[in-house]
Amino acid sequence: MDIAMEEARAAAARGEVPVGAALAGPGGRLLARAGNRVEACHDPSAHAEMQVMRAATRLRGGARLVDCTLYVTLEPCPMCAAAAIHFRMGRIVFGAYDPKGGGVEHGPRLFTHPRCLHRPETVGGVREREAGTLLQDFFRQLRA
Amino acid sequence: MDIAMEEARAAAARGEVPVGAALAGPGGRLLARAGNRVEACHDPSAHAEMQVMRAATRLRGGARLVDCTLYVTLEPCPMCAAAAIHFRMGRIVFGAYDPKGGGVEHGPRLFTHPRCLHRPETVGGVREREAGTLLQDFFRQLRA
Repeated sequence: MDIAMEEARAAAARGEVPVGAALAGPGGRLLARAGNRVEACHDPSAHAEMQVMRAATRLRGGARLVDCTLYVTLEPCPMCAAAAIHFRMGRIVFGAYDPKGGGVEHGPRLFTHPRCLHRPETVGGVREREAGTLLQDFFRQLRA
Repeated sequence: MDIAMEEARAAAARGEVPVGAALAGPGGRLLARAGNRVEACHDPSAHAEMQVMRAATRLRGGARLVDCTLYVTLEPCPMCAAAAIHFRMGRIVFGAYDPKGGGVEHGPRLFTHPRCLHRPETVGGVREREAGTLLQDFFRQLRA
């Protein structure tokens, strides 16, 4: 989660919504790290989670991520949660909860849907205050 | 939809699940076309819809797709439906319905969820039989 936090801070410094992610393989080996790059890439799907899941899967020659853990500073949105199902993500550890935009513990709660084909283990609220403060500070500065 | 069908057939020929997409801008101008490339790209998120939305947005320098139409041969899955919200997709015309994997008229029905921030206009079942037959033939051959 340290690396995800670093990536979130780096995203803020680039003027992106500060969300960061890291993806660890078996034994905790770091496979990919990324911050949000929606603005830089002109790509509304360039969320931190999408980037690390894609990078890690490419690195492993297409193997699904069932033995891996995704660390991300904010509760994944429905797009990233649904993507985590396609990637067969083993475990997701996230920081701040997102009552407005989240898709795991809020909104469509995709992993508990009866049609869900794969349910990653999830742990939310890890370093929640730190991850949330980063987002609040960013949006406060935007409005200032 | 002709182009989306062509892309679906080309995907089948590459050994990919045959789904194709085309993205049209104002006046019907073609902005992007793609077939499913999950296997070729080692990327479970490389659905036809994701590729054309990303390509069209990059082409337009980041502008959202509110004045555009996405044509796709199969009902979008929850990941692609949720992405279409982020991309502010104006309209989605799809072919076959997908009772098992769809996210528009089935499963989490993301566009009717109360937390949905943008609802693309959707038209389903366009050339449904043709699009569905392509998928059925592909899976029948896989099992044979």
